[in-house]
Amino acid sequence: MLDLIPSGSVTSASGFLAGAVRAGIKNKDELDLAVLCSEVPCVAAGVFTTNQIKSAPVVLSQRHAARGQARAVVANSGCANACVGEQGLADAVEMARLTAARLDISPEEVLVASTGIIGAPLPMDKIRASIPKIRPTRKGGHDFCRAIMTTDTRPKEIAVQVDSDGKKFTIGGVAKGAGMIHPNMATMLCFIATNAAVGADFLPAALHEAVDCSFNMVSIDGDTSPSDCALLFANGQAGNEPIKSHNGGTFQEALNAVCTHLAKSIARDGEGATKLIEVTVEGAEDWVWARQAARIVAGSPLVKAAVHGNDPNWGRIVAALGRSGARVSEHKLDVYLNDVCVMKQGCPTTFSKAEMMSSLSRGVDVLIRVCLNLGEGQATAWGCDLSEKYVTINSAYTT
Amino acid sequence: MLDLIPSGSVTSASGFLAGAVRAGIKNKDELDLAVLCSEVPCVAAGVFTTNQIKSAPVVLSQRHAARGQARAVVANSGCANACVGEQGLADAVEMARLTAARLDISPEEVLVASTGIIGAPLPMDKIRASIPKIRPTRKGGHDFCRAIMTTDTRPKEIAVQVDSDGKKFTIGGVAKGAGMIHPNMATMLCFIATNAAVGADFLPAALHEAVDCSFNMVSIDGDTSPSDCALLFANGQAGNEPIKSHNGGTFQEALNAVCTHLAKSIARDGEGATKLIEVTVEGAEDWVWARQAARIVAGSPLVKAAVHGNDPNWGRIVAALGRSGARVSEHKLDVYLNDVCVMKQGCPTTFSKAEMMSSLSRGVDVLIRVCLNLGEGQATAWGCDLSEKYVTINSAYTT
Repeated sequence: MLDLIPSGSVTSASGFLAGAVRAGIKNKDELDLAVLCSEVPCVAAGVFTTNQIKSAPVVLSQRHAARGQARAVVANSGCANACVGEQGLADAVEMARLTAARLDISPEEVLVASTGIIGAPLPMDKIRASIPKIRPTRKGGHDFCRAIMTTDTRPKEIAVQVDSDGKKFTIGGVAKGAGMIHPNMATMLCFIATNAAVGADFLPAALHEAVDCSFNMVSIDGDTSPSDCALLFANGQAGNEPIKSHNGGTFQEALNAVCTHLAKSIARDGEGATKLIEVTVEGAEDWVWARQAARIVAGSPLVKAAVHGNDPNWGRIVAALGRSGARVSEHKLDVYLNDVCVMKQGCPTTFSKAEMMSSLSRGVDVLIRVCLNLGEGQATAWGCDLSEKYVTINSAYTT
Repeated sequence: MLDLIPSGSVTSASGFLAGAVRAGIKNKDELDLAVLCSEVPCVAAGVFTTNQIKSAPVVLSQRHAARGQARAVVANSGCANACVGEQGLADAVEMARLTAARLDISPEEVLVASTGIIGAPLPMDKIRASIPKIRPTRKGGHDFCRAIMTTDTRPKEIAVQVDSDGKKFTIGGVAKGAGMIHPNMATMLCFIATNAAVGADFLPAALHEAVDCSFNMVSIDGDTSPSDCALLFANGQAGNEPIKSHNGGTFQEALNAVCTHLAKSIARDGEGATKLIEVTVEGAEDWVWARQAARIVAGSPLVKAAVHGNDPNWGRIVAALGRSGARVSEHKLDVYLNDVCVMKQGCPTTFSKAEMMSSLSRGVDVLIRVCLNLGEGQATAWGCDLSEKYVTINSAYTT
């Protein structure tokens, strides 16, 4: 049993608090510095960027999360604290120390996440002045969500309540990300907090599985960033028997659902996006190739531009499939656009272009379904359309 | 010795003729069907798309080019003859047959190339009526060039004269391509004609080398197409001793120069582009990784959008390098933008942002140079900026 909690946030699970302030890092009248913490110790796990250029907060958080325990994260928007030399790590360490002092915990229990411009140093005077002003509360989840936004136009948060054999627990999650988004953890931050008791050995595996079927299936522009991370805290306040494996699956299913919701929210809010694109590949030789093919189609600039213009130019879907690396047999290929078959066994079908254009322009979600008819592999990926606005946003980001 | 021939074209080498007509395939008052041929038999070689979805003309031309001999190519724009089922191959075969009849040669000597919309059948009635009207002449190179353009805004052609130990020969080349351009032969066509005598065994290797350092180093949008090909004809009319290896290298150097010129022309004319981006990676572990890193940076949507806005946001260059797969050591990394060092040993330098923005906005070429300082690998790739116009062009291509 999995129930959506109305107006849920990352602090919906018992024992989690959050707070945010406007430190002035962003030069805008917006929240930009926030803390999420647990009243009691947590087991914790993280998944971090695959980019070889890692921000200082990623380096520090990887080190702290490796302990398997943590109970707070301090996050800021406006500056990524990446590519600034050795000062970056010193600043990240100081952020953890200041937050630990504020919460009266040890610095090793604090993870750090920064997002924003690369190559600019953190304004540490503002951060030093602001961390002591943060007042974490049970209702602070929404403020935390707003404080980590950069080019996001909408907050991305969710909480679900799970009833597992009569024992209830909650999972709350929050994410940011709108550009530099690509499979393998692109410019996004995600924080998940649950009051379920989860074994420290199992938690990283659970998070990896959830990330793999959600954030790693989203592409906005093919670029990845040095800042990305997804962090999961479990404080055990629900009092359940600690979850130590996929057994029963309820916790994993709920975690996957939370991450998938946040991943789709990121795709839907892609920079300049007006539509979510959902690409399902069926009948691939195996699951790995299905994933690859789905991601390549969802990330193709030409597919994305065609969707933006409500143009049923399915040839671009086929061309993207053909370069995906997945085996494709042209005469077995079926392609569906919003559930209308546009290519059957490698040949164009006769469909009403006017009706299709109207269907594409009607809703915000566009469904692309491809049947390779070669095997059992299936996967779904998400992306968004490519609009003139994406270019406008990204042609003057630092200027 | 290599001299540029003023107003050179694909028919600059002796013995080559070309002609074009308006067949009405494009629904515009433009040339759209053309023939290039040699007065005498040629050795010939081709490089074709790596996309698994191949257009019918690519399938046919691969078959004919495998003979190592050919003396004509018929090309059309407006329709790619791809993804149309078995009719596609039948139509390509008929195009070759009609052209052979027109030129009084055998159909196996004719290669076929089509570019344009995917998934639409060729209007064969128009092609049947038009091929007999084509009148190839020595001066027809420029018309051939115009007839293969789709979203290209400028013709792309060049011819060079080479003096190799007192023996002169000419290489003329023509290309089209502006979108769906990516490493590994994207939506582009290229035809090269030389009067040098070249051994049939050596010709394919020479073409592969030239394509590898030119067209395979260009990225416009990461998409590849089913139609791409580069074809090279050598008719031996220069009377030189047949070239059978890289020995001396003059022929190869000239061929590389012709292909590089055409590749850069394609990048400069990328859909919606206002600037050529040249990315040189030095000091990579080896040549293969240098190529990979240069291509990833040149293809990054975020780098391309920043260049469009004259925004010296070098963090995006570093982020793209970090995901390229090439080994990157942050503290050894130097980055130059238009010859100004913006990152030295992993740290930001202090440069005048105003001057840099002015430098970026001044010319049409933007130079990105990265020194990884890890080895001897070096490579150069080309791309173009990403503008709002790219999206506008591609959001309503078939509608």
